[in-house]
Amino acid sequence: MKIKVILASSSQEIVKSQLEDRKKSLAAGTEITIVAPPLCPPSTETERDEVLAAPQILSEVMKAKDEGFDAVTIDCVLDPGLKAAKQASQIPVVGAGESAITLALLFGERFSVIMPTAASIGSMVARIRQMGLWNRLAAVRAIDLPVLALEDYQETVKAVEREARHAVEQEDTDVIVLGCTVMGPIADTLADRLGVPVIDPGTAALKMAEAFVSPAWRSTLYPEGNS
Amino acid sequence: MKIKVILASSSQEIVKSQLEDRKKSLAAGTEITIVAPPLCPPSTETERDEVLAAPQILSEVMKAKDEGFDAVTIDCVLDPGLKAAKQASQIPVVGAGESAITLALLFGERFSVIMPTAASIGSMVARIRQMGLWNRLAAVRAIDLPVLALEDYQETVKAVEREARHAVEQEDTDVIVLGCTVMGPIADTLADRLGVPVIDPGTAALKMAEAFVSPAWRSTLYPEGNS
Amino acid sequence: MKIKVILASSSQEIVKSQLEDRKKSLAAGTEITIVAPPLCPPSTETERDEVLAAPQILSEVMKAKDEGFDAVTIDCVLDPGLKAAKQASQIPVVGAGESAITLALLFGERFSVIMPTAASIGSMVARIRQMGLWNRLAAVRAIDLPVLALEDYQETVKAVEREARHAVEQEDTDVIVLGCTVMGPIADTLADRLGVPVIDPGTAALKMAEAFVSPAWRSTLYPEGNS
Amino acid sequence: MKIKVILASSSQEIVKSQLEDRKKSLAAGTEITIVAPPLCPPSTETERDEVLAAPQILSEVMKAKDEGFDAVTIDCVLDPGLKAAKQASQIPVVGAGESAITLALLFGERFSVIMPTAASIGSMVARIRQMGLWNRLAAVRAIDLPVLALEDYQETVKAVEREARHAVEQEDTDVIVLGCTVMGPIADTLADRLGVPVIDPGTAALKMAEAFVSPAWRSTLYPEGNS
Amino acid sequence: MKIKVILASSSQEIVKSQLEDRKKSLAAGTEITIVAPPLCPPSTETERDEVLAAPQILSEVMKAKDEGFDAVTIDCVLDPGLKAAKQASQIPVVGAGESAITLALLFGERFSVIMPTAASIGSMVARIRQMGLWNRLAAVRAIDLPVLALEDYQETVKAVEREARHAVEQEDTDVIVLGCTVMGPIADTLADRLGVPVIDPGTAALKMAEAFVSPAWRSTLYPEGNS
Amino acid sequence: MKIKVILASSSQEIVKSQLEDRKKSLAAGTEITIVAPPLCPPSTETERDEVLAAPQILSEVMKAKDEGFDAVTIDCVLDPGLKAAKQASQIPVVGAGESAITLALLFGERFSVIMPTAASIGSMVARIRQMGLWNRLAAVRAIDLPVLALEDYQETVKAVEREARHAVEQEDTDVIVLGCTVMGPIADTLADRLGVPVIDPGTAALKMAEAFVSPAWRSTLYPEGNS
Repeated sequence: MKIKVILASSSQEIVKSQLEDRKKSLAAGTEITIVAPPLCPPSTETERDEVLAAPQILSEVMKAKDEGFDAVTIDCVLDPGLKAAKQASQIPVVGAGESAITLALLFGERFSVIMPTAASIGSMVARIRQMGLWNRLAAVRAIDLPVLALEDYQETVKAVEREARHAVEQEDTDVIVLGCTVMGPIADTLADRLGVPVIDPGTAALKMAEAFVSPAWRSTLYPEGNS
Repeated sequence: MKIKVILASSSQEIVKSQLEDRKKSLAAGTEITIVAPPLCPPSTETERDEVLAAPQILSEVMKAKDEGFDAVTIDCVLDPGLKAAKQASQIPVVGAGESAITLALLFGERFSVIMPTAASIGSMVARIRQMGLWNRLAAVRAIDLPVLALEDYQETVKAVEREARHAVEQEDTDVIVLGCTVMGPIADTLADRLGVPVIDPGTAALKMAEAFVSPAWRSTLYPEGNS
Repeated sequence: MKIKVILASSSQEIVKSQLEDRKKSLAAGTEITIVAPPLCPPSTETERDEVLAAPQILSEVMKAKDEGFDAVTIDCVLDPGLKAAKQASQIPVVGAGESAITLALLFGERFSVIMPTAASIGSMVARIRQMGLWNRLAAVRAIDLPVLALEDYQETVKAVEREARHAVEQEDTDVIVLGCTVMGPIADTLADRLGVPVIDPGTAALKMAEAFVSPAWRSTLYPEGNS
Repeated sequence: MKIKVILASSSQEIVKSQLEDRKKSLAAGTEITIVAPPLCPPSTETERDEVLAAPQILSEVMKAKDEGFDAVTIDCVLDPGLKAAKQASQIPVVGAGESAITLALLFGERFSVIMPTAASIGSMVARIRQMGLWNRLAAVRAIDLPVLALEDYQETVKAVEREARHAVEQEDTDVIVLGCTVMGPIADTLADRLGVPVIDPGTAALKMAEAFVSPAWRSTLYPEGNS
Repeated sequence: MKIKVILASSSQEIVKSQLEDRKKSLAAGTEITIVAPPLCPPSTETERDEVLAAPQILSEVMKAKDEGFDAVTIDCVLDPGLKAAKQASQIPVVGAGESAITLALLFGERFSVIMPTAASIGSMVARIRQMGLWNRLAAVRAIDLPVLALEDYQETVKAVEREARHAVEQEDTDVIVLGCTVMGPIADTLADRLGVPVIDPGTAALKMAEAFVSPAWRSTLYPEGNS
Repeated sequence: MKIKVILASSSQEIVKSQLEDRKKSLAAGTEITIVAPPLCPPSTETERDEVLAAPQILSEVMKAKDEGFDAVTIDCVLDPGLKAAKQASQIPVVGAGESAITLALLFGERFSVIMPTAASIGSMVARIRQMGLWNRLAAVRAIDLPVLALEDYQETVKAVEREARHAVEQEDTDVIVLGCTVMGPIADTLADRLGVPVIDPGTAALKMAEAFVSPAWRSTLYPEGNS
């Protein structure tokens, strides 16, 4: 099974830094290629970034079947262009945000999301309300590190732990959703320190894609044209 | 006061057909210019259209202040690029969809939206849930006329009346929101026939823009930088 | 255009103190008259005040058309008698509370309301739930100044700023709604100090009334009998 | 225990016709007096009726303690003046609407309310949303009999049965709430014919009043001043 | 009237300690028997306790009619087995949790529940969401005393007062619901100290049972087979 | 990877009839064992069945780790005992109902569930409200075939297709969730006929279990003790 992982970033550095982390949770036989669309913004943090990233991501999705992929993940917690991609694609498309938030429902009564910067809190709040999950949300909090600084994992884990701990201890949070796929590599350390489930959206999307593509199941989930 | 009305369509025909209708509800002294971004899709009906229209609209919004406008309306009920435009613009930006749906709350307990085609029902449903207004919604229904056919007003009024009447008589609807700004010219006839308020989103956005720009009020609504 | 502004207060002092403030945001050609029904309570802060104010306000609304007005605003954030007035009036009626809270939806994901005293928090909470806007509310807070003391604007701005700042910094608030129309004159200073939109309900109602009465639009919004 | 039952009607005929029905579910030792405030509207069906009835009811509530009553019920499903009465009264006040709707939650997943006329549907819908119970509501339906015609019980039972059956068979209703206290006498026949619980609001309020006044419990429910 | 009170506990000590408290709010003529099913867990605090308690409680409910009882209360705020008991029983069954939470709606806009230990917070949160009452909930808090320690009333009242006061003063709580029926005896002291209504679930269920069984009302509430 | 599939049924016939169907969507290397607890009811359709099935299922879950399993699925759409099992188990536990309903969110705006008989509609409605997903639900409908008759797949597919088609064409449904794991084998035919995604809960739970157990991911999802 070949999955195309599309970043909402033009950064080749992020491609490199994420590849090993994304690979480590895959089933035997799953191969992934991470793509950073060159005309995307360097990172997707504001509503404007989402608007500019979405057509680039959509364009990468549209090519994926002909490139030989079995599924696509949009590797950004804000899911830019996701619904359009689902409508237009001939192979399964899974968003990192929708996967992480949806799976969080299985791990506790209330989840919180920790975003990189305050600029994307509104976007995430609107997304959760759009998903109809307002009454499962504990809090959306932000650390103060832009996406491109998140690869300093020591700094990131420290900042996320502080906000996540506040969410758990003061705001009735049972599950933490990481608010950026670039935070993926810290999930393990964070879960260990906090003692609550921590959902890494990039991995969540990949595991959903693996599941939805499994041969006998796929035809019941994608009855129209996705062949 | 000069307002830039940005269509989510590249069609110069729509510019022409809508201009007189949009003008007729304006306050003395309000001037409008309708713009159809040339790289927009011909009409915005699917999620893919929204993704492709949004950057074009955003780009038109960004130029508006320098072009001498006092405010911008995004003249599409799906509000493509609206939040990004609000974040990025230095003058007030108002969406047709957000204005129509929000004002509907003042005219009855439950509203329904009549979309041009079934392709945009999902998008509207998600939008209303995102606005947190699910429990004020009666129904989202569709006629079967693509946007570019809506200018046949006789056909359009007939089709919208049929669906709107069903919404009013069978689905507890108090207010009708027209699901496309191109339907604007039928609002009057429709309200007269149905006997319930009918909200035309293009006009709703213009009247909100006029209100928000009024000098003494504006500074309380746009305290940061919008000058 | 002539608009009758009906206070939920019998106080002629409030009429005088508010007139200039209400006028400053009006369109050219809009004239207003502020009325303090003599049998109203001095101010409307408790549920009991609302019950006693409502018939007085309703009675003022019923006379408005014959007095030559084009529209009425009920100038109290608790909207006493509003629904009855809308049902019974032959000209448009707009409430200060419904206008301010509805417009707040266009200026951010979550709004907070700052009431004069704790006695009206429950009433406001119930009102927001009735409007179906629970999931857009951040907080309802109160300063400790009765309505009749609000005209000490220095004291009022200090107290409201303190509570509003708490709402913005600790409770995820994007927009402040002033919880009493008598607070209107402080909106400007407050927005400037806080850097977030501040909605003055008295002005919000007047601007909505101006918009709804505009000739070509009015017939689509008030199809039955309002002539 | 003496309970004052306050109608939202000035009709002495209703007093007479309801007395026996209200009495039949009371505990041994409970005495009731039904009062029809002379300045009330003849019946309370519109928002305007509610506004006019509320101060009359409030005034009757305020006298009740000195008249020797232990509790008050507001015998109207629209609960006019209820919150003000609770705030102002020194003895327990229970509303027929709040009691019936709240108890309906114990008898099924979704309830429907059958109103006398369509004029009060909006009021009931707003009330249920205000109570936060929107997602427990199946439907609000209306027969076409004004309150003062409801005492023709044969006609009433026929009309209510038709709407209630529709709610049960087509709209997922588990419990019927009668939408007017004057419908009380038909509850028994209706429940028998439909085979689902039918809640009579006048009785619901009386049984709640009896419960809340019971000596050892009352002090925990009314800790402040109600003595 | 004879009511069977079924504990979700096998403890005969709890039977003894609760009997006097439960009796003190009953109407003249109501007799109760408290039963502790011997195969129940000693107390019901975790989801696992609920699963193990439910069949024991159900079995006690099924015998109650033949034992001569007129109604049953399930004396546990988590309502284990309640829906099954209602489906299966031939006499009215009332849950302590559903009664307390439902009645709380009549005493304020927002209620909070104080649980014995954090282990049952999730269960209570899920229950309130299931009841559709999420938007009436202020907070679910826990003291740190297991159920079997709650009979030390001095310790219990101190701990519950601390959490309840926090809920009232910091979390917009109007009404306190005690999160365990064994806390019943402290309701009075607590309400007195806090000055807000405090709802004791065991008593709430008993008063509801008394009300629902009253002869003329019962047939409308239990039309099918409950005879 | 070895997964224990626990039925909410004592029927060995169901074990046999489901085994091949459950196997066909599994990843290479996943082995399953289906268990029918002998003291379970023959099928779980009423609230009473749930109460009786839950301790049997819990007991099977508790043994699973020592039996050498890596994960457990509770193969019943009503998820009896699920939360207790999650709390008590040392290996991952996934419910068929929670998995199917949660994944449905990724495949459309509104889902409907088709239950075997009307007896379980209330239970499913309460479950969806408990999950906080009320505003994503289109309808819960029932065919009229008890679980033990569902293995007549021709009859079942005909009955489910009729109800599902009604949900899709009349009730705004985008995704169908099968209301019983025994319906699994019809998912493919049904999706093909209806042209919308059809989610088979038994498979959904197995695919989630496979995903959650994947080595590098598992430690972030189950940080406490599940080893």
